[in-house]
Amino acid sequence: MAVTDIATRTHDHNFRLDPIVRSLLDTDFYKLLMLQMIRQLHPDVDATFSLINRTKSVRLADIIDEGELRAQLDHARSVRFTKKELIWLAGNSFYGKARMFGPDFIAWLAAFRLPDYELRKIDGQYELHFDGPWTHTTMWEIPALAIINELKSRAAMRDRGRFTLDVLYARAKARLWEKVERLRQLPDLVISDFGTRRRHGFLWQRWCVEALKEGLDDRFIGTSNVLLAMDADLEAIGTNAHELPMVAAALADGDAALAQAPYQVLEAWQQHYNGNLLIALPDAYGTTAFLANAPDWVADWTGFRPDSAPPISGGEQIIRWWKEKGRDPREKLLIFSDGMDIDTIEETYRHFHGRVRMSFGWGTNLTNDFRGCDPDGGNGLDPISLVCKVTSANGRPAVKLSDNPAKATGDPAEIERYRRVFGVMDQETRPVQV
Amino acid sequence: MAVTDIATRTHDHNFRLDPIVRSLLDTDFYKLLMLQMIRQLHPDVDATFSLINRTKSVRLADIIDEGELRAQLDHARSVRFTKKELIWLAGNSFYGKARMFGPDFIAWLAAFRLPDYELRKIDGQYELHFDGPWTHTTMWEIPALAIINELKSRAAMRDRGRFTLDVLYARAKARLWEKVERLRQLPDLVISDFGTRRRHGFLWQRWCVEALKEGLDDRFIGTSNVLLAMDADLEAIGTNAHELPMVAAALADGDAALAQAPYQVLEAWQQHYNGNLLIALPDAYGTTAFLANAPDWVADWTGFRPDSAPPISGGEQIIRWWKEKGRDPREKLLIFSDGMDIDTIEETYRHFHGRVRMSFGWGTNLTNDFRGCDPDGGNGLDPISLVCKVTSANGRPAVKLSDNPAKATGDPAEIERYRRVFGVMDQETRPVQV
Repeated sequence: MAVTDIATRTHDHNFRLDPIVRSLLDTDFYKLLMLQMIRQLHPDVDATFSLINRTKSVRLADIIDEGELRAQLDHARSVRFTKKELIWLAGNSFYGKARMFGPDFIAWLAAFRLPDYELRKIDGQYELHFDGPWTHTTMWEIPALAIINELKSRAAMRDRGRFTLDVLYARAKARLWEKVERLRQLPDLVISDFGTRRRHGFLWQRWCVEALKEGLDDRFIGTSNVLLAMDADLEAIGTNAHELPMVAAALADGDAALAQAPYQVLEAWQQHYNGNLLIALPDAYGTTAFLANAPDWVADWTGFRPDSAPPISGGEQIIRWWKEKGRDPREKLLIFSDGMDIDTIEETYRHFHGRVRMSFGWGTNLTNDFRGCDPDGGNGLDPISLVCKVTSANGRPAVKLSDNPAKATGDPAEIERYRRVFGVMDQETRPVQV
Repeated sequence: MAVTDIATRTHDHNFRLDPIVRSLLDTDFYKLLMLQMIRQLHPDVDATFSLINRTKSVRLADIIDEGELRAQLDHARSVRFTKKELIWLAGNSFYGKARMFGPDFIAWLAAFRLPDYELRKIDGQYELHFDGPWTHTTMWEIPALAIINELKSRAAMRDRGRFTLDVLYARAKARLWEKVERLRQLPDLVISDFGTRRRHGFLWQRWCVEALKEGLDDRFIGTSNVLLAMDADLEAIGTNAHELPMVAAALADGDAALAQAPYQVLEAWQQHYNGNLLIALPDAYGTTAFLANAPDWVADWTGFRPDSAPPISGGEQIIRWWKEKGRDPREKLLIFSDGMDIDTIEETYRHFHGRVRMSFGWGTNLTNDFRGCDPDGGNGLDPISLVCKVTSANGRPAVKLSDNPAKATGDPAEIERYRRVFGVMDQETRPVQV
């Protein structure tokens, strides 16, 4: 016999909103690591983050109701870190280190709230900007993306019957489990969830993370989602992101300073963190140029996250460079996290196995793969390539080139200048799926 | 439409046990405060705790299946403090104080497990003893009581229909809410939950605690249950218990040392704790004798918990003593926690209001009051007066006199000796309900 709790159901009569973001820990761990450093080094820098939908064919403003979007963004702005969350942040060990976050930072987080936003519809898309101190706008990236992606999923499923939905999730679960069974064949696999920003929805991400915990056991080392890490007693995973070199580059005065900006960011990072947190992103202004001009000490870092390069050629390039610098790649770490899925994970694993330590950050294709799952068909649940990037710092335009011109962001004239300063030659353009 | 999650239901096909104690934090807060001190001062003392059912008419061994009892006790022995729980204990503030529990103690808790038990049936009752280091046996008191009380409830409800149970809980909720409405009439009320040991069941205690949080708002200051305090973001409440003077008295060599034992315990306590944790239990060997012989500094303590004396006469006696010592009772605190219920809370509140600070610890009559709630009638859900007391320390008998001879425990000859040493005159015997 199935029973409905009448009091709960009656309470829900007053239901207004099913909030997507219910905790400020429902974000990526690297945001907190970066925030602690930003707050110390750049408390007065303003940074604007902006939503960019690279999948132009999906007209988000026609799909997602503006009132619902505002209600979710407003709700996220009402959320505070709770006492229990701050105690956990202060007391938990991250990457084997106790007291990763200083008491001063924790006290500052206690008063933190997400800043205001600017939203308008233009030509079937949402323009969404977050202006203000970098210490605040940076924290919008993940919740803003999670909100829009989940509202898009909700819209796609709005008129489905209950059994259609039940079958939809049944298929998605079966689909994920097939991947789990294949991943179990890779004995030295090290993998973590990087799928918060592009997830189908919060509850689905939680299901995926807990399923990997049961299904992959020790091969699954954790999640970038801080809330899920806390609740499921998993490691919180993550290091740093492109916004650090992008802001440093935007603030650099003149071409010489610009050329040095990516390395200065690494110098600052290693003042704050060490060990397995010394993972460099080489691709902000082209991996080839980055490696060619890198100071020797960059080879002392634990590893690289070759983000926008194809995993095998990108990995080989870095391994060659380590060897040139006299380093043994088997003691180094490569983290692959750009649009990985079961096929590319297997291929990359087999290619590099035994030659370098490696770890996979599995994102969109973990937490938002509903291909072939919708009994009613259609592509409404396909993930889109949605990002929220820093677009200016202290009023100056911010630029990213990456190893794939399709992922470049920023003012075209500035992009040209950056290509010249960093000596970026012809790059191969590859389609961006997610 | 009500739906059953098929996977969950199928997982439950393998159901073996619905564990009563699922966390070592599911205990009273004072146990942890005392444990920290016991571990520092008396790491080598052995103490035996024993179950005592004062309600002889209820033949527990006829009601509770021995196999079920062993399964629950064994399950409790398998539980460890989790990482998240230890982080919270280390990081949370208790009674306004950060780092109440030292890192050394927290590290020791990480390896803690409940020690073995000795169980046998004698004459329709269970004999249940916990022998071993005091640092371990002390932690059995609350889970052992909670397990037996919940197994007794489960036995009483075993053959009930689903709607009978639904009405049973409906009536119990309505009953508690009537008390809440009366308590709301007391503007300066300060009350907390002390009902873990005698609760009807864990889920019911959680309902009661969360209902008081919503219903009484700031008048409800917290719960003695550490797990519920953590989960519901409430204050953990509690100070110390009779086991401290009982063990000190048992270990005292000769009558002169015995007479001083209760005060030595207080001296040790104030080396460890301060502020609102300086609450003395005056009744272990008679309140009158305790006050007559107390050193002056005892009047500097924040207050008393007059446990076994009737609240009004017991409170008046302490107020007179404070005045004799030149103290202003309005700056002092009385905590009433012995079998309180709505009538005695109202009466005590009105009697002392404005003359002394007071606080109520509401136990059995909060978390186990099903009088008149069972549609099938009977008294199977009536609470019983079940305790788990220290009965010997390092092989010497432990004794408690209390202000009510019906609550005395220990060897009769030793009780006589204690009465002589502490100068305890005739006491009024009152029936013990809970």
